[in-house]
Amino acid sequence: MGVKGSEDAAVGSGSEPARFVIANLAPTVDAGRHPIKRVLGDPCPVTADILRDGHDVLAGRIAFRGPGDAAWRYAPLAYDYDTDRWHGSFLPDRLGRWTYTIEAWTDRVATWRRALAARVDAGRDLEADLREGAALLHAAARHAPAAVSATIERAAAALGRADAAPAARAATALRADALPELVARHLPVPDRTRHVDDLVVIVDRERARFAAWYELFPRSSSPVPGRHGTLRDAAERLPAIAALGFDVVYLPPVHPIGRTHRKGPNGAPTAGPDDPGSPWAIGGSAGGHTAIEPALGTLADFDHLVAVAARHGLEIALDFAPHCSPDHPWIREHPDWFVRRADGSLKCAENPPYTFEDIVPVDFWCADRAALWTAWRDVVLFWVAHGVRAFRVDNPHTKPFAFWEWLIAEVTRAHPDVLFLAEAFTRPKTLRALAALGFSQSYTYFIWRTTAAELRAYLTDLTRGEFAEFLRPAFFPTTPDVLHAYLQTGGRAAFRVRLLLAATLSPLYGIYSGYELCEGIPLRPGGEEYLDSEKFQLRQRDYDAAGNLNDDLRALNGLRRRHRALQRVDNVAFHDAGAEQLLWYSKRGDAPEETLLVVVNLDPHQTRESMVEVPLDLLGLGEDATFEVEDLLSGERYAWRGRRAYVRLDPADRVGQIFRLHAPGAPA
Amino acid sequence: MGVKGSEDAAVGSGSEPARFVIANLAPTVDAGRHPIKRVLGDPCPVTADILRDGHDVLAGRIAFRGPGDAAWRYAPLAYDYDTDRWHGSFLPDRLGRWTYTIEAWTDRVATWRRALAARVDAGRDLEADLREGAALLHAAARHAPAAVSATIERAAAALGRADAAPAARAATALRADALPELVARHLPVPDRTRHVDDLVVIVDRERARFAAWYELFPRSSSPVPGRHGTLRDAAERLPAIAALGFDVVYLPPVHPIGRTHRKGPNGAPTAGPDDPGSPWAIGGSAGGHTAIEPALGTLADFDHLVAVAARHGLEIALDFAPHCSPDHPWIREHPDWFVRRADGSLKCAENPPYTFEDIVPVDFWCADRAALWTAWRDVVLFWVAHGVRAFRVDNPHTKPFAFWEWLIAEVTRAHPDVLFLAEAFTRPKTLRALAALGFSQSYTYFIWRTTAAELRAYLTDLTRGEFAEFLRPAFFPTTPDVLHAYLQTGGRAAFRVRLLLAATLSPLYGIYSGYELCEGIPLRPGGEEYLDSEKFQLRQRDYDAAGNLNDDLRALNGLRRRHRALQRVDNVAFHDAGAEQLLWYSKRGDAPEETLLVVVNLDPHQTRESMVEVPLDLLGLGEDATFEVEDLLSGERYAWRGRRAYVRLDPADRVGQIFRLHAPGAPA
Repeated sequence: MGVKGSEDAAVGSGSEPARFVIANLAPTVDAGRHPIKRVLGDPCPVTADILRDGHDVLAGRIAFRGPGDAAWRYAPLAYDYDTDRWHGSFLPDRLGRWTYTIEAWTDRVATWRRALAARVDAGRDLEADLREGAALLHAAARHAPAAVSATIERAAAALGRADAAPAARAATALRADALPELVARHLPVPDRTRHVDDLVVIVDRERARFAAWYELFPRSSSPVPGRHGTLRDAAERLPAIAALGFDVVYLPPVHPIGRTHRKGPNGAPTAGPDDPGSPWAIGGSAGGHTAIEPALGTLADFDHLVAVAARHGLEIALDFAPHCSPDHPWIREHPDWFVRRADGSLKCAENPPYTFEDIVPVDFWCADRAALWTAWRDVVLFWVAHGVRAFRVDNPHTKPFAFWEWLIAEVTRAHPDVLFLAEAFTRPKTLRALAALGFSQSYTYFIWRTTAAELRAYLTDLTRGEFAEFLRPAFFPTTPDVLHAYLQTGGRAAFRVRLLLAATLSPLYGIYSGYELCEGIPLRPGGEEYLDSEKFQLRQRDYDAAGNLNDDLRALNGLRRRHRALQRVDNVAFHDAGAEQLLWYSKRGDAPEETLLVVVNLDPHQTRESMVEVPLDLLGLGEDATFEVEDLLSGERYAWRGRRAYVRLDPADRVGQIFRLHAPGAPA
Repeated sequence: MGVKGSEDAAVGSGSEPARFVIANLAPTVDAGRHPIKRVLGDPCPVTADILRDGHDVLAGRIAFRGPGDAAWRYAPLAYDYDTDRWHGSFLPDRLGRWTYTIEAWTDRVATWRRALAARVDAGRDLEADLREGAALLHAAARHAPAAVSATIERAAAALGRADAAPAARAATALRADALPELVARHLPVPDRTRHVDDLVVIVDRERARFAAWYELFPRSSSPVPGRHGTLRDAAERLPAIAALGFDVVYLPPVHPIGRTHRKGPNGAPTAGPDDPGSPWAIGGSAGGHTAIEPALGTLADFDHLVAVAARHGLEIALDFAPHCSPDHPWIREHPDWFVRRADGSLKCAENPPYTFEDIVPVDFWCADRAALWTAWRDVVLFWVAHGVRAFRVDNPHTKPFAFWEWLIAEVTRAHPDVLFLAEAFTRPKTLRALAALGFSQSYTYFIWRTTAAELRAYLTDLTRGEFAEFLRPAFFPTTPDVLHAYLQTGGRAAFRVRLLLAATLSPLYGIYSGYELCEGIPLRPGGEEYLDSEKFQLRQRDYDAAGNLNDDLRALNGLRRRHRALQRVDNVAFHDAGAEQLLWYSKRGDAPEETLLVVVNLDPHQTRESMVEVPLDLLGLGEDATFEVEDLLSGERYAWRGRRAYVRLDPADRVGQIFRLHAPGAPA
């Protein structure tokens, strides 16, 4: 039984009760309510308890099918005696949502052979078992094709020969040959039981897990000072961004920006005639979410941008923000889609006491809900049709969970290569819930984890336990909304530190343009808003200005592509750094020579040195091993011996090192 | 959404998606698949996560109903900001299965007041909020009875008075008076959402958790040597058993015993004409599971036994063993209910290489399954009608889980005071599964946990974590099948030790008659079968024989009844005994003076002494407190001081002590 009120099912209701307890399937998210996530090429592991009354030998398998498959496919489960648990996996071969579950049955052949063997060992009478075995074989033969049937019938006859010695007949039956498997393949399985619930795994493309993102505002990309940049201007930047090793170029909203209540520089409540306003105040006379802000260009220009990106191995990610400016066409076309105050006026977005007059939220539960939700889905599909496969979702926690769950499933059913990144700067349980319901990736609290203790605790939290199954953390050291105090006071070294951390601690990371120029001036001291935020004005930059971090970016993005240990998040472990300001961690590879060791000086002002503890076991080395390591950032080599190694980091020179075994020393 | 494929439900399917995420309800068993268990009088706690998009203030409540209730009842949930979790409980007021779940909604009144307060604090314009508040109040007034409506309307009017200062109107609105609650009570709640799954709690009578069991074979109870005892003879024993402080008298099967393949003394394959056979070989010419073995008497004699028990505050528990001897009437009447070998002969019970020729298992999955299962249910109901409210189930792990889940639910639906005790000497996961699917109580591995380390680990395992919600452990130091080596070699002291442990570590414990006479001779050295086991022959005893443990039984059963700390299993903690052979633990009471401290010398041969560590915090005492404790077993008092106390236990004299604060000393 797998259903509540199973007592009703047991007698007389027509629904047969379950003969097996199939339980505690893992891994799961919320007991199977939400899907786990994998990347194409990952096996999908399944473990479960399978219980039945009595002592018979059981068997189990995974039943699975991919999107659009009519028939189930099967993968074996193996039993671990020590843990009394069943283990297996299957390998999805295409993107999308795969459904799977467990089937269990009694292995009558193995049960019979085990009983026979036990009675042989105990010197008991064997006739009954031999007759029973013959009956099983006859039953199998009846369901086998002719040639096989003949083979099995001969074995059955031999078993049943009353004139042959029981011991000899038993010995033949217990021989480890092909017969048992042959019999099992054709013997009917009357009690095969499928677990009542299906599980789902979302199989995504590789960039779901491993990608470097670069965020830029196209309107700042004109080479002409003071001129509003266009999508074509932005296209000109792509080769350089690709050369730095990025994969995804993420654009804040590219749609028409409303005029009513447009904000001025630094969020001023009114804008001058030339102030561009916030890209998130979406919608104006030129259109809404499926239009391009005229100052940026045309839809053809967008297609051009996408094409240039593709030529350079990049993809364009768009911002998806399902709200409207007061000038959005839908306000006129669908007035009932919006929340109104008691006096009938439109209600602005707010988080009391703050009001955001340039944004009007939609009423996701209005009477015309179905049309509204469908309209948002169609916005996303519109951009998918124009070549977009990744959407960074603005403030998802202010829109209903049910909406996101539906939207993501709808879009990915037709386009399983589309990714959704949640800007989930919200409470932990909400952040988690968004990931669980389907967001492919998620912003995290990385920005606010700056000390060694905070980073150790947070990374451990993210990578151990359940999160690894469904939450892919994206590490952005800044966003247009958040400039952390650490970067405000730490200077260039601080920017190098946070970049090194982000790029090595998560396979999914990104920067917001200007980061490489160490832009770190806040609007107010101690606040997190940028001075002269690009949200409200153009920020034209010389990306080759002195002090830029382009070398760091090139180096780190290159290392990430060459070293698989940096392409997963769940292989980090922290080791004793010997000093509070140093962070010292390993990224475990499939083999010792693929494991990387990273040391970072979190103090952007002072040199720090320490004897760090080397995790010799991860490197396959013994206690007194002598070995050589290479710092992949500088190329330098060091001779190390044993469990302690000396590191010294002067932030004026370097903020960290990434070590790899150069030549293994004394054997373990 | 609480359903798989919720994307289908979201748009156009007619089923409204959920506006809230209501998740992680606790406590649960297997994510709600199985019920938790409580005893009448216990509150049923419920905690949950309630999430919604945005920042509005939420509210929640528990919806619950008892067996047969048509309408839901409600209990409040309170929100804990620190854990972002909701907490509440409800109090079931009768036995049976109670259903409950969580409802959540937006608290529009609290949301409005919080926004208003935030804008007042920030010095913002208040008119919009005041108008909105007036609109809310008007809406509430429209749904309130006349007198209340008038009150609310007056407040609404005051709020909306444009000629009064906003600050004053806001202050009035934010006053902590009765108005908010009044408004909330009548304001329609359009988004109240119920969690999609119900949870179930089984509310049992107190003896489910707290009872002392005494197992006896009525056939051994004749005062005349060699004469087969009767139920009337057994009734004569009840006063003495009651005087010892027991609650439940458990009888092995009292039904006719089969003749075919009847076992002789010590399990001999054949029985002599006077050998009584195993009571578990149920069924003969005199009937089956609803008949009484003629040598024991009649059904009227059984009724007499039950009546005598009731007069002495005892109840009779029967053994329920749904299998048959080869002579059971059902073999003739329902031949299709039984498993047959390939040659058509009845298949005996077996656990290869062992065969139990006196027992024939039924085929729980035969074609006539419904009639078979119903027949077993009717057996149980037959005995319920004859006054039995507790069944000790033999070898439940050899009958289908689905059968037990159905049977227990069926019987307890009509008779919620019936208890089922699982003799679950099987693998851990199977033992757990039987408890989860509905067995009220469970045998455990207590018998085999004899060292201090084993006991600490096992009791911690049983009492922390999930087991406390659904598994009630029964501690029997022996059963007719199991005589542990510790008792074979430890002599009288060993019996005293195991009794003290069982009686204090679990509120549910029992002994098998003869235990109090320290019967400890095995059939084979190192084996666990008794010599001359009462399973196969009469064992007539002088229960007042020298060396009996009746004083221990009286004392322990009396202490258990007087001290609430001994009436629950989840309040044990182990403390440093200072010596490997001593076990030292507390049973925490509701107040320090109700807490008990138990020390046991597990060595039955040697005196042991030690300085034990006193858990001063549990006693509400400070580091240097001087205090007096009383040993409730001996009446002796001791003056203790601080964190260490001296104990010395000579097994020839005493095997343990149970301390309680006599007079609290220096204040904490």
